[in-house]
Amino acid sequence: MNNNPLHQLMNPKSIATVGAGNNPLKMGTIQALSIIKDGFPGKFYPIHPTEKEILGYKAYPSALDLPEAPDLVMFVLPAPQVVQILEDFGKIGTKRAVIITAGFRETGPEGELLEEQLKATAVRYGIRFLGPNCMGIINSALPLNVTVIPLVGPPGLLGMASQSGTYITQTLPYLQQKGIRFSKAVSVGNEGDIDIVDALEYLGSDEQTKAIALYIEGLKDGRRFLETARRITPHKPIIAQYVGGSAAGARAGSSHTGAMAGPDFLYDGLFKQAGIIRVHTVEELYNQGWVLATQPLLKGRRIAVLTNSGGPGTAMAHTCNEGGLEVPAFSAALQAEIQKHIPRHGSTANPVDLTFHMNAEVLSIILPEMIMKSGEVDGLVIHGMMSSGFLKAIYPHLAGLFGGMQGAEFIEQADRDLTEPVSLPGKYQMPVILSSFFGREDNYTAAYQDHDIPVLDGPEKAARGMLALHRYNLIRERAPFEPAEPLLHSAEAVRILKEALSAGQRSLDEYSSKKILAAYGVPVSNENLVYSAEEAVGRAKEIGYPVVLKACSTEISHKTGKGLIHLNLHTDNDLRNAYRAIIKAAGQDLAVLVSKMVTGEREVMAGMARHKGFNPCVMFGLGGILAEALKDTTFRLAPLSKADTVEMIGDIRAAEILGPFRGLPAVDLKALDVILRVVGSIALLHPEIAEIDLNPIIICGAEPVVVDALIVLDSVPE
Amino acid sequence: MNNNPLHQLMNPKSIATVGAGNNPLKMGTIQALSIIKDGFPGKFYPIHPTEKEILGYKAYPSALDLPEAPDLVMFVLPAPQVVQILEDFGKIGTKRAVIITAGFRETGPEGELLEEQLKATAVRYGIRFLGPNCMGIINSALPLNVTVIPLVGPPGLLGMASQSGTYITQTLPYLQQKGIRFSKAVSVGNEGDIDIVDALEYLGSDEQTKAIALYIEGLKDGRRFLETARRITPHKPIIAQYVGGSAAGARAGSSHTGAMAGPDFLYDGLFKQAGIIRVHTVEELYNQGWVLATQPLLKGRRIAVLTNSGGPGTAMAHTCNEGGLEVPAFSAALQAEIQKHIPRHGSTANPVDLTFHMNAEVLSIILPEMIMKSGEVDGLVIHGMMSSGFLKAIYPHLAGLFGGMQGAEFIEQADRDLTEPVSLPGKYQMPVILSSFFGREDNYTAAYQDHDIPVLDGPEKAARGMLALHRYNLIRERAPFEPAEPLLHSAEAVRILKEALSAGQRSLDEYSSKKILAAYGVPVSNENLVYSAEEAVGRAKEIGYPVVLKACSTEISHKTGKGLIHLNLHTDNDLRNAYRAIIKAAGQDLAVLVSKMVTGEREVMAGMARHKGFNPCVMFGLGGILAEALKDTTFRLAPLSKADTVEMIGDIRAAEILGPFRGLPAVDLKALDVILRVVGSIALLHPEIAEIDLNPIIICGAEPVVVDALIVLDSVPE
Repeated sequence: MNNNPLHQLMNPKSIATVGAGNNPLKMGTIQALSIIKDGFPGKFYPIHPTEKEILGYKAYPSALDLPEAPDLVMFVLPAPQVVQILEDFGKIGTKRAVIITAGFRETGPEGELLEEQLKATAVRYGIRFLGPNCMGIINSALPLNVTVIPLVGPPGLLGMASQSGTYITQTLPYLQQKGIRFSKAVSVGNEGDIDIVDALEYLGSDEQTKAIALYIEGLKDGRRFLETARRITPHKPIIAQYVGGSAAGARAGSSHTGAMAGPDFLYDGLFKQAGIIRVHTVEELYNQGWVLATQPLLKGRRIAVLTNSGGPGTAMAHTCNEGGLEVPAFSAALQAEIQKHIPRHGSTANPVDLTFHMNAEVLSIILPEMIMKSGEVDGLVIHGMMSSGFLKAIYPHLAGLFGGMQGAEFIEQADRDLTEPVSLPGKYQMPVILSSFFGREDNYTAAYQDHDIPVLDGPEKAARGMLALHRYNLIRERAPFEPAEPLLHSAEAVRILKEALSAGQRSLDEYSSKKILAAYGVPVSNENLVYSAEEAVGRAKEIGYPVVLKACSTEISHKTGKGLIHLNLHTDNDLRNAYRAIIKAAGQDLAVLVSKMVTGEREVMAGMARHKGFNPCVMFGLGGILAEALKDTTFRLAPLSKADTVEMIGDIRAAEILGPFRGLPAVDLKALDVILRVVGSIALLHPEIAEIDLNPIIICGAEPVVVDALIVLDSVPE
Repeated sequence: MNNNPLHQLMNPKSIATVGAGNNPLKMGTIQALSIIKDGFPGKFYPIHPTEKEILGYKAYPSALDLPEAPDLVMFVLPAPQVVQILEDFGKIGTKRAVIITAGFRETGPEGELLEEQLKATAVRYGIRFLGPNCMGIINSALPLNVTVIPLVGPPGLLGMASQSGTYITQTLPYLQQKGIRFSKAVSVGNEGDIDIVDALEYLGSDEQTKAIALYIEGLKDGRRFLETARRITPHKPIIAQYVGGSAAGARAGSSHTGAMAGPDFLYDGLFKQAGIIRVHTVEELYNQGWVLATQPLLKGRRIAVLTNSGGPGTAMAHTCNEGGLEVPAFSAALQAEIQKHIPRHGSTANPVDLTFHMNAEVLSIILPEMIMKSGEVDGLVIHGMMSSGFLKAIYPHLAGLFGGMQGAEFIEQADRDLTEPVSLPGKYQMPVILSSFFGREDNYTAAYQDHDIPVLDGPEKAARGMLALHRYNLIRERAPFEPAEPLLHSAEAVRILKEALSAGQRSLDEYSSKKILAAYGVPVSNENLVYSAEEAVGRAKEIGYPVVLKACSTEISHKTGKGLIHLNLHTDNDLRNAYRAIIKAAGQDLAVLVSKMVTGEREVMAGMARHKGFNPCVMFGLGGILAEALKDTTFRLAPLSKADTVEMIGDIRAAEILGPFRGLPAVDLKALDVILRVVGSIALLHPEIAEIDLNPIIICGAEPVVVDALIVLDSVPE
């Protein structure tokens, strides 16, 4: 992945800044200070029209005066000046830029023009740039920090790419309090050149980065995002938040970075297909991202809950359980061992509840080690490890009661060598997550955090961290992505589509729609088009009664309730009557479809729609009369692998009905798989198809049969 | 409500403690210190066997030596000593006790016995007590704090009753950092006497308490809880977390306080019926509880989002939208006004995005006031109000750049008079919630919090706070609870049940089950029991073809797939054949039910089951073949008011199908209402009925008809 443009951008040997001065309250200056003070090991060249020296470094009037072409240039100055100065850097051979400056595409037509000029200039000189309208980058390993906030602590493990700069800058002090540290962080801004997919790809190949967090308001290229993410998730977890799927979210995102949002279901399907863990708050993004980055894999589903307080213990156990993890009662032998160390009114079963007491050794060493060694669980959540934080909290009331002892001395009592407690998770290679209502003012919280053991401020958060590890396990266990055999064009389908298009049709009638589906192997109802009652009778005899009779015309949709569809016809006579009724209801002579009556108690549906920037989006869902009300649907992007269709079929809430169900046989999943994959493949083969709708697909015995279908055409293929 | 036992317990004029000494590291001492140091205005009497003085107060060897009977006594000493000393206090006339001591019912049979003795002693002397195994009480108005943690700040507005002591003690420093303050807090422990319903009732009547938060592991008396909560919620919000509904949660709760947990759906229905806002984490309980306690009512659904950072703004807008609130684009006039104060690359539409800049006046005064005055919104969420927190974060890099200026001076620049910003929400009586990644180290966060304007540490949390206000609005707008007319015993139902019980039956057959339902006004299929094919033909003629024929016996359940049910019979001959087939399949002569064939495309179901401590629980859900797979059900407790059934019917995911739907008429909701209410009333009238199951209820045209029913008997009525 060394051709990823961020590789060089994140690891420069020399940096120039444009916009930094000696006024310490200017953003450009503050950002330059981060480069200097946070230990960037390379050369630093400030550009300034008048100053001779900036922040103690020799300043240069322009790029053309520099002694060498710096690897990277950072812009923090008004938008109209950026293009010209970028040109100078292009001339001297600089190939990477970070453009913090806002005021481009996100502001409207004028800004758009400016951004186009920026791009053209960059292309002319082979410059790859981040931004504009971004907050910069952090590479904690180099180290290099160009954001306004100082970087604190050793290099971290969580990589972040964000369409909001705030989430890698304004939140840094907040993250420091939580002990969460970035490996690399990239604010992509308007994505004028380098985009969030480049950042994702870069973080995927970065060895320091153990998990990737993404904040997304909209993707320009869903196709490449999916391909990139799918390559990463089998060996490195990705967690993401998407906020563009509501009306307000989409409008906000668009004015923020000009992001192209799409419907929530599209991103939900995309994330599932890519094996990305989706969360709905930025706190979960950070917390669970940090858990994924720091903790070993969860080897099974069995979790131990250890607590010094009943409420949080119960909440942790409940939250684990609800999310699909087990909190098994311990063996009698283990419980007897545990009982030796806890009060009689404590509880040994799991949760293990020590009840409130201040002997930290039991909670932090003896019991955790006993439980980890037992082989009875795969992960451990602990609530209530605390010492100095608690003492500080109670000290105000105790002051003066210890003779001459002062607050500091009192709190120092909490000081202990915490080497052993913090080393246990590593020793047993078991995921451990703590919950504590005390922050880094507590010596336990600080020590665990500093050893990359997450301490989250609430029992449910610790449990949900464990659930994130569980979700990642399910992703790792998925069948690998294997692209399906490409489908070849069917001559018949091509002919039908060509004829319809040249006739100016915007959609195909039911008969032609099914013909195309059948041509690619989709099972459809056995049927024929007829133009007279007697022809209908003849065809019905071939097909076999009972049959269905339907008007068939591109001009008529929604046949139900208009007398244009007659079900369950058993005799020639019934058929003739129905035929006449249809012609009468339609008020014209028209083609009529005589089809085998397909019956079954279960109905599903499938479909396809297109969204800009994404491959065709295939839908699967519960069909029939309830479909509209229940919206029990799931989505994936074509081409679908077999693993995709298996997941889609299992993803609907009503999935249970597809197994052996209430005396009905299991549905032929292979046949369903074919339907879904073919719908996707047809969409890829035929860009002239805008939408496909198969509803209902009746499960007849075990076999799915497409009973109604509609193909909508796009006169202007994408 | 002055007969609520907590009224006196929370407002004592004098307190005795048993278990406090002069060792400042004993819990009893630390808790006594909280009474003394946090400003309890009444008399304080330590009881101690040997010491003459405790913490500067005269100590007494026993209750019998006290100069008066204290209003309240608190116990923090080993369990076996409690009963005897309580007896002493009983003798002198003390009527209230808080028993912190653990080691009672939660530890098993021995502890249970001890708790029984405790209760008996209390009853003998008319003592009402809290606990045992609790963490005490807080009354911030008095003030009185008996917990181990000091109380900080002025009296608060959120009342809390908790089955975990931790949530009113260990969390106090955490809550102080969030600016959340209790009015009153009660840790109910084992609920040996005073229980969480007493606490709820007390907080409901307490004027200082503006919203109530409940942490629940299990309720002993769901009936009284519902009645009490339902009286409170129309005028005071209640928010609750329930964690006993999973296997692990139930086990944990039971060993914690001996709580009797029940299934999650039961509590979910109970909360909905009572108008309680349910949350799933303790953080939401606190945060949203604090929003409900401090903010005025949300008068509509329109929310303004104001931010200095795009990401959080987008996330807030998205979260509001997803939860049912609107984030409407502002009028052109308002946008033009806003544009005057923000950079060109900012955004005016809503969200209003100032983009990053340090002019706090625009974000904190000018724009909020402009928006609140506009009449275009009903509530406001703001992200990014910050000053000293941010300066402290960036200071390390700037140190030394200001000549002699030190950190403190630099940070002092942030000092401003914040009177105006914090007074705006009150001035316009509009809910305002802030999001900030900076805590109380920031002067804005501290000032807003100190004026009871919530500052939550994440944009989604601020938005969800607004959603809690919205949820409470929906609760306030509900039709008031009106108990239904009580149903009178039907002589026929009584006769059928009596006969079945005396025959030793454990359930009624389908025919008798429906007879009982019909006797109380439930519409059931027109049908008759027959014993021969010819009788069947006769009855079918009366009923009218098509008919259904079913075996009818209490010994046969699950008729489907066994040849015991024949649908849609149109002729005498078909009927005779079906009759013979049923007798053959059953292998014996038996009663057969001939019923009118009821058809309809929509099916629902209803039912009733009993749970200890709760009134009969009535279920409503989507019926038919999908019911089992979709579990689209909702629950309420009998007796049901009309408002309850309307909510139940609207509560299922498939509710849309009950309206006019795909050419089908709207379902007769009055008839559905009758079915649900009657099911509940039958359960109340007939304790000998253990379960009722109506599935399916087919919607025939607009009318619901019960097509199959089962009544299960309980030989030992509750």
